[in-house]
Amino acid sequence: MSTNNNDTKAKTPLPDLPEPAHAQLDSMLARKFGKEVANYFAGSPLNRVSFLRPDTAFLSQALKHESSRFVLYNNLNPLVKSPERLHYVSYKDVEAVVGDPYNRSEDELVKQYNSSIYQPQLVFLGIDEKKNSEGLVYRERYSGQPYWAVDVTPRASVTEAAEQLIKRLEATGVYFVQGRMQLSLVAEEAAIYAEGRHLLDWNARNPFCAGCGHKTLSVNGGFKRTCPPKDLADRLADAAEAPDRPPCATRVGVSNLCFPRTDPTVIMAVVSSDGQRMLLGRQRRWPPHWYSTLAGFLEPAESVEEAVRREVWEESGIHLGRVVIHSTQPWPFPANLMIGAIGQSIPDGEEIHLGHDAELEDARWFSFDEIREALRTGTSGLGEEPGPEYTPGALRVPPKTAIANQLMVAVVNGFANAEPKI
Amino acid sequence: MSTNNNDTKAKTPLPDLPEPAHAQLDSMLARKFGKEVANYFAGSPLNRVSFLRPDTAFLSQALKHESSRFVLYNNLNPLVKSPERLHYVSYKDVEAVVGDPYNRSEDELVKQYNSSIYQPQLVFLGIDEKKNSEGLVYRERYSGQPYWAVDVTPRASVTEAAEQLIKRLEATGVYFVQGRMQLSLVAEEAAIYAEGRHLLDWNARNPFCAGCGHKTLSVNGGFKRTCPPKDLADRLADAAEAPDRPPCATRVGVSNLCFPRTDPTVIMAVVSSDGQRMLLGRQRRWPPHWYSTLAGFLEPAESVEEAVRREVWEESGIHLGRVVIHSTQPWPFPANLMIGAIGQSIPDGEEIHLGHDAELEDARWFSFDEIREALRTGTSGLGEEPGPEYTPGALRVPPKTAIANQLMVAVVNGFANAEPKI
Repeated sequence: MSTNNNDTKAKTPLPDLPEPAHAQLDSMLARKFGKEVANYFAGSPLNRVSFLRPDTAFLSQALKHESSRFVLYNNLNPLVKSPERLHYVSYKDVEAVVGDPYNRSEDELVKQYNSSIYQPQLVFLGIDEKKNSEGLVYRERYSGQPYWAVDVTPRASVTEAAEQLIKRLEATGVYFVQGRMQLSLVAEEAAIYAEGRHLLDWNARNPFCAGCGHKTLSVNGGFKRTCPPKDLADRLADAAEAPDRPPCATRVGVSNLCFPRTDPTVIMAVVSSDGQRMLLGRQRRWPPHWYSTLAGFLEPAESVEEAVRREVWEESGIHLGRVVIHSTQPWPFPANLMIGAIGQSIPDGEEIHLGHDAELEDARWFSFDEIREALRTGTSGLGEEPGPEYTPGALRVPPKTAIANQLMVAVVNGFANAEPKI
Repeated sequence: MSTNNNDTKAKTPLPDLPEPAHAQLDSMLARKFGKEVANYFAGSPLNRVSFLRPDTAFLSQALKHESSRFVLYNNLNPLVKSPERLHYVSYKDVEAVVGDPYNRSEDELVKQYNSSIYQPQLVFLGIDEKKNSEGLVYRERYSGQPYWAVDVTPRASVTEAAEQLIKRLEATGVYFVQGRMQLSLVAEEAAIYAEGRHLLDWNARNPFCAGCGHKTLSVNGGFKRTCPPKDLADRLADAAEAPDRPPCATRVGVSNLCFPRTDPTVIMAVVSSDGQRMLLGRQRRWPPHWYSTLAGFLEPAESVEEAVRREVWEESGIHLGRVVIHSTQPWPFPANLMIGAIGQSIPDGEEIHLGHDAELEDARWFSFDEIREALRTGTSGLGEEPGPEYTPGALRVPPKTAIANQLMVAVVNGFANAEPKI
C-alpha cells in the first residue's frame, strides 16, 4: 500500500507535534524507554466519555449547551479560518440544520426508525475539561465544553438550510478546505478534526447493513450503527404498524459490524544487520528522489510483528528478524491506525527483490548520514517543495507530521544500537 | 470489553508458545529489547504470498495440487483429530463440495456473478515452504505445500455432498470441535486455524455490501469481497443480459469495505507509580478470585497509547502517564488484533473508581509477589480449574496462551524497572 506521506500542505514551520504532559513524567517507563512520541493526529485534548454516548439526555444537553462547539464538514472538508485553525460554530448556528435528534431515548429512536427521514450526521467528539468553568456539568462529575462534528453537506431535506448556513458563514471569511493538501492544523485541532472525519466517513460509507442489506440507523452519538427490526418507511398506507424486517445476525448479541471500523496498518523503518543502513522505498507517482519507509495493511490473524516481516519481504525481498513497535498514529484517510515499528534484517536476507508484489518502483539501502541530511534539509509533503537548504538530487523524505519521519529520526538517533531515545 | 482470557480448554502442559527462529537472532534490536514474544495464534508457518491471490491460475493449481491440505470448518468449528491437532484432508476429499471455482479469471468471475448460486467459502491460507520438495512450484520462484480453509457447513446446493463428507470423515474418528473451550492446538496449528476462522467468519458476516445493500462476491482467495455491477440472478426470462445494479461507492477506486476487517484492541498491564504493584480487574461472570489485565477497543482517531489511557481511566479511574507497546496477538473471535501494552500510573491518579463505565465488578492493586505466585500456581482458562499447587482463595490469572499473562510476566520480570526482558 501507499505509505502515509502526509500530503498536508505544511507551512514553515510545520505545526508542532503534540507533547502531552505525561510524556515528561519521570516514570520508570519514561526513564527506560524515553519520552513517548505522540504523532500528529494523536494528542486530542478531549475526554470522549464514551460511556455517556448511549444516554440521549446527556447528548441533548451537550448538543444544546451554550459552550458547545461544532466542527462543520461539507463533503468531509472541514470549516477553517486558516490552514492552521478550525472555525467552530455554536448550536444556534446549526440548529436549523440538525434540530435535536436526542429528544427521546435511544430505544425510542430505534423503535421510531424511518429510513425516509434524512438526519444530518452528528458525532459527539468529547468534552474539553480544561474549559469546565463555562462548560456543561453532568451528574456532578463530568464537566467541560462539548465538541461535535456535523455533516452540513447540502442534501435531501436540509439542502436549503445547509446552503444558507454555508453562505452566511463563508460571507464572514471562513471556508471549507478542499482536500487535505491544503490543511496544516495545529496538533490539538488536527486530532479533533481527525476524530470527526473518521466517524463521518464511516457513517457515510456504511448506510446499509452488511449482514442483511437493509438500511441502518446511527446511534451512540455517531459511534454505532444499528439495524432496526422495523422501518416506518415500510408501513403500508392502511396498516397500523410497519412490518418486521427479516432477521439480522447483527441484532443477536454484540456484532462488530455495528461499531466503527479502523484498519490496522504497519509502517516500518528497516535497519540493516550491521546497523549502518536503512531501507527506504518509493512509488512511481512520487516526486523524484522522494523515498519513505515501507508500509502495508495488517491482515487477519497476523501479529503486528508478522505483518511487518511479511510486508517487507513482499515489497522488497528483505528478510527481517526482530521487530519492535515504536509508536502509533491515527490516520483518518479514511480509517487507519498506523502502527510504527523498527525491524532489523538478517545477514543473509538483505538482497533487494522488487518482483514479488510490484508495488514499489525502487527500494534502496541508505546510509544513516544520507538520511540525517534528508531529515535536516529534504523533508516536505508530497505536494510541496523541500526547503531552501535542499541540494537538488539528494534524498527527499516525508515531513515530521508523518510517522515515517519519526521512525527515521528514532533510528538515526540510535533506537537500535545505543541508549533508548524513544 | 472483555479481555481475551483464553477460554481454551488447555491440557497440562499448555501448548508451547511459538518461538520463531528470528527471535533468537543476536541482532542489535534483540540485544537491546530482548527476545520477541510471539503470542499464541501468531507464529504461522505459512507464507501467504498475498500478491498471488488475484491470480486464479495460481489458485486453481494450489487448490488441486496433490500436496494441498484443507482445514474444514462446520459452522466455524474446525475438524481435528484431537484437541491439540487439526485433521487435514486433500482436494479429492472436498472436490464434490467445492468444485473448482477458479477455472476462469477473476474478471470473468465478477462478470458472471450470480447470487443465486451457492459456492462454499474457500480461503487460501498460504504455502508451507518447508515442504517444497513435494509441493507446488509456481513461476519457478514460489514453492511449497498449499493450505486452504473450507466451509463445509451443509447448506443450500451442497447440503447432501457436505453431509456425506462429514459422515465419512467422522466415521474415521476425527471430529468438529464444538466451541473454542475444547481446543488447545499446538502453536503452529493454532495460527493456521486462526487465519481460516477469521476469514470464514468475515465472509459469512458480510454477504451484503454496506455501501449499497446488494449482495457481494468473495474474490482474491477469500481475502476480498467485491460488489459486482450486475447479478445474473436479476436477469429477466426474455432478456439477453442482466440489468445494471445501482452505482456503488465501493466500485470507485479502492474501498476498505472490500477488505477483511480486523478490530484493534488494547490490553494493558498497569504498573503503579512506585513500580511495586500491578492493577488487575475482573468481570462479574468470571470465577471467584480470577483477575486479568484491563482491555478495550481502540476507537477511531486514537493512537494506541491514547486508547490505553482512555480505557484504563474509563474502567478503573486510574490516570496513566507513559505507555509502551510490548507485543501483539491475533485473536480470531471474531476479528481482533490484541495490542499488548504496559503503562504506568501517575502519583496523584491512583485512586480506583469503577463508576464511569460500569464494566468491571472489581479492580485492585496487587503486589508483584502475589502476581508471581498466581503466575506459578493459579493460571487456567476461564472454564477450567487451576493446578494442584493453587491455594484456595488466592489470585487466579489467565494462562500463558493469553497475552494478558505475557504482559504480567514481562512486568514482574522487570520490564518497567530493570534490564530489558522482552
